[in-house]
Amino acid sequence: MNIPKTSFPRVVIIGGGFAGLAAVKGLKNQEIQVVLIDKNNYHTFQPLLYQVATGGLEPDSVAYPLRKVMKNLPNFYFRLAEVSKVDTEKRKIHTNIGKLKYDYLIIAAGSTTNYFGNTNIEKYSMAMKDVPQSLNLRSLIIENFEDALLTKDLEQRNALMNFVIVGGGPTGVELAGALAEMKKGILPNDYPDLDIRQMQINIVQGSNRLLKAMSEKASEKAEDFLIELGVNVWKNTHVTNYNGYNVETNTELSFEASTLIWAAGVKGATIGGLGQECVIERAARIRVDEFNAVKTHKNVFAIGDIACMETSHYPKGHPMMAQPAMQQGKQLAKNIIAQLENKPMIPYAYKSKGSMATIGRNKAVVDLKKIRFQGVFAWFVWMFVHLLSLIGFRNKAVVFFNWVYNYIRFDRETRLIIRPFKKKNKESF
Amino acid sequence: MNIPKTSFPRVVIIGGGFAGLAAVKGLKNQEIQVVLIDKNNYHTFQPLLYQVATGGLEPDSVAYPLRKVMKNLPNFYFRLAEVSKVDTEKRKIHTNIGKLKYDYLIIAAGSTTNYFGNTNIEKYSMAMKDVPQSLNLRSLIIENFEDALLTKDLEQRNALMNFVIVGGGPTGVELAGALAEMKKGILPNDYPDLDIRQMQINIVQGSNRLLKAMSEKASEKAEDFLIELGVNVWKNTHVTNYNGYNVETNTELSFEASTLIWAAGVKGATIGGLGQECVIERAARIRVDEFNAVKTHKNVFAIGDIACMETSHYPKGHPMMAQPAMQQGKQLAKNIIAQLENKPMIPYAYKSKGSMATIGRNKAVVDLKKIRFQGVFAWFVWMFVHLLSLIGFRNKAVVFFNWVYNYIRFDRETRLIIRPFKKKNKESF
Repeated sequence: MNIPKTSFPRVVIIGGGFAGLAAVKGLKNQEIQVVLIDKNNYHTFQPLLYQVATGGLEPDSVAYPLRKVMKNLPNFYFRLAEVSKVDTEKRKIHTNIGKLKYDYLIIAAGSTTNYFGNTNIEKYSMAMKDVPQSLNLRSLIIENFEDALLTKDLEQRNALMNFVIVGGGPTGVELAGALAEMKKGILPNDYPDLDIRQMQINIVQGSNRLLKAMSEKASEKAEDFLIELGVNVWKNTHVTNYNGYNVETNTELSFEASTLIWAAGVKGATIGGLGQECVIERAARIRVDEFNAVKTHKNVFAIGDIACMETSHYPKGHPMMAQPAMQQGKQLAKNIIAQLENKPMIPYAYKSKGSMATIGRNKAVVDLKKIRFQGVFAWFVWMFVHLLSLIGFRNKAVVFFNWVYNYIRFDRETRLIIRPFKKKNKESF
Repeated sequence: MNIPKTSFPRVVIIGGGFAGLAAVKGLKNQEIQVVLIDKNNYHTFQPLLYQVATGGLEPDSVAYPLRKVMKNLPNFYFRLAEVSKVDTEKRKIHTNIGKLKYDYLIIAAGSTTNYFGNTNIEKYSMAMKDVPQSLNLRSLIIENFEDALLTKDLEQRNALMNFVIVGGGPTGVELAGALAEMKKGILPNDYPDLDIRQMQINIVQGSNRLLKAMSEKASEKAEDFLIELGVNVWKNTHVTNYNGYNVETNTELSFEASTLIWAAGVKGATIGGLGQECVIERAARIRVDEFNAVKTHKNVFAIGDIACMETSHYPKGHPMMAQPAMQQGKQLAKNIIAQLENKPMIPYAYKSKGSMATIGRNKAVVDLKKIRFQGVFAWFVWMFVHLLSLIGFRNKAVVFFNWVYNYIRFDRETRLIIRPFKKKNKESF
C-alpha cells in the first residue's frame, strides 16, 4: 500500500465506526502518522438505520464520508480496503490492496450479525447492520405490499403482510415500532385496495422482557407502547428455523411470514492472524487488557464492539454499543500519545451515560444514571441526543427537517424501491 | 390484473413521468376510472439526475412515490408493472402481472438511451436516464479516484481520472460542469495524496455548437463557462467506438478513459403490438395526430417523449423534454373528458416557455421567448424554476437546503459508495 514513510510512528486504525473515529480525533495534531482503513468510504450511524429501512430517512443522512473526516489533517491517510489478517510478527496487516506496516495497530472493525450457526436463518432472513442491508429491507417491505395486492391466494397475502422481528433489543423494538407506524399512517393511504388491518408485526424475544439491558420500568413501558401500536410481543421464545415462509420457534408458536428480520445477536467482525488465545470464540471478540491492548501484543489494540475487556462489573465485556466504543477510542488515543511521551497509560473505565430507545411518535424510554422517564419527554430527549450525535451539520439539518416534516404530516416520503431486492436476491416467496 | 370493474370508462396510462402525471392530474374528479402503470413506484425528476450522479443530491430528493400522487383519489389505481405489448383488437395491454382491458389507452412510456446500434458503447459506457444509473455513475466516479490512488501505472491513473462525456445537450453540459466543480472544490480535499490536476473532463459534441436547441448566444456562453471551468470542449466530433479504455472518434482525436458517459441520444421506449405503420423507426417514437391519437386507433394515445407529432414547425416531432410532455398530458386529459361529453377535441399546439441549462456555480444560460440572459441571474432563475417543478414540499425543501448548503460551503456531502459499481459490473478497467 503506497503510504509515504516518515520519521513519525505509524498508527493504523482498522474501521471508521464510533470507536475508530474517536481514535482518529484523539490522535490529531501529534507527531504521528495515522492510516484509517475501512471497507466503506463512509461512517455509518447505525442507531438510525431502522429509519432508513422504514422510509423515514435517506441513507445519505446517516452516513458520512470518511475522507471528509480526515480533510486538512496532514499525515492522516484513508484507504478503502478490506483487511484479511494481521501479521503480528512482521507488524503488518494484509488487505485486498496490499500489505501495510504498522507501529501501532488499532482494531476497531466492529461487529456483524450473529446467526449462531443457523444457516437457514442466515440465508432467508434480513439483517439491518449496514446501509445496503437497510435499503434492501426498505425495498422488500414495499415489494411485499405490491405483491400482496396482486395475489389472489389469501394465505400468501397474509404471509406477505406478516413481519417477524427476532430480537427485543433496541434495534428490534425500534424497527417494530416504525413498522407499526407505517401500518397506521402510511400504508392504508398507499394501498387503499388492500386490507392493511391484515398486516401483522411480531417481535420475538428470547428472555422474559424486551430491552433487557435497560431498567425493568423501561422494558415494561416499551412493551406497553408496542402493544398500544398493535405489535404482537412474544417473550421467552426462540426462533429456531426459517425457510423463507415458515417461522418455527421452540414453543408451539409458529408463523407464516415472507419477512423475518434477524436482530437477535451480534458478534465481532473476523480479523485473522491474532491467534486463538486472543479471541473469545463464542462472541468472536478480541480479549484485551485494561488499556485495550491485545493481551499478547503490546502494540496491538482492539476497541469498540470487537474488543472484550473482562472486568468485575462486566465479566463478559462491555455492551456492544456506541458509548464504550467512543470512550475507548478516545482513551486509547491518549494512551498511545502517553506511551510515545514515556508517560504512564491510564486504564479504561466505562462511564455509562445511560441508554434509551424510541418506540414511535411521542413514545420513548430513557434510563439515565439517576433518573428514568418514558413517553413524550423521553422521545424529545432521544431525538435531541441522536441529532447531536450525527456527524456533520448537513446531516443534522436534513434529519431534523425530515423528523419535523414526518411529525407534522404523519408521513414518510422516501418509500421508493430504488433497487428492487426480491427479484434479484430471492428465489421464491 | 385485479382492478375492479365499474360502470365508468377505464383510462389506462402507461408511465408516471411528466406526461403521464399531467394526464393523471387532468382526469381527477371525473366519472372515469384511471389506472396508472409504471415499472418503478416513483416519478423521476430527470433534469436533476446529474446532481445525484455528482453527489449534490440524494436520490430520494428527485424521486416521488407514485402511490402518494394517487392518494385519496377514488377510482384511481396504481400498479407496479412492465408493459410488454398492446393488443389494440381486444383493447388490452399485456404486462408481467397480467392483462388489463382499457377503454382509453395513454402511452407515456418516455424514452431510453439511444446507442444507434453501437453495442460496444452500450456495453462499456454509463448512462444517466434513471435513478439507479445515476447512482451507479456516482459510485464509479468515486471508485475511480480510490483506484487512481492505488495504481503505480501512470497511464492507468490518468485513464481513471479521464472523463469523456458524449453529447453536448443539457445533460452533457450540466454533467461536465458538475464534474468540473468536483475537481475544483472537493476532490483535492478528499485526495490530498493524488494530483487532481491530472483529472480531465472532455465533452464531445457532434455538431458545431453545444446546446444546439438553444440560441447561439446561449451555446457560446455555455462553452465559455465550461472552458473557464477547465472542461475540454470538442465540437464537430463523433465518438465511434469504446472498449472500456480507448475512446475512438471520427477524427484524429482519441482518449484513454475509464469512464465514458453517453448522453448523445434518446429514443422512444419500446411498446410492442402497435404495428409498423404507427412507429417511426429511426427514433422509435409513436406517430400521433394533432390530438395525440395514434393514427390508426381512435382510443389509443401517445404523449411525451414517446409521441411524435409531425407539425409544420416541428417536422420531426416536438423536442423530447418535460414541457411538451406536460402540456400534452394536460391537453389529452381535457380531450378525453370532452370526447366523453360529446364535445369537440382541441388540437395540441406547443407553447414553448423557453429553455435553460446550468453549467455551474453562478453560471447558467436562459432563453425565454423574448429575452435571453446568462450568468448569475440566469443561474438563480434556473434554480427557482427547477425547485418549483419538483413534486412535493419535502423534496423542494430538502433540495433547497442542499443547494444553499453546497453554495455556502463549496461542498457536496453525499459522496458515498453505497453500492459499489465497478466490482460487480465491469470485468476490468
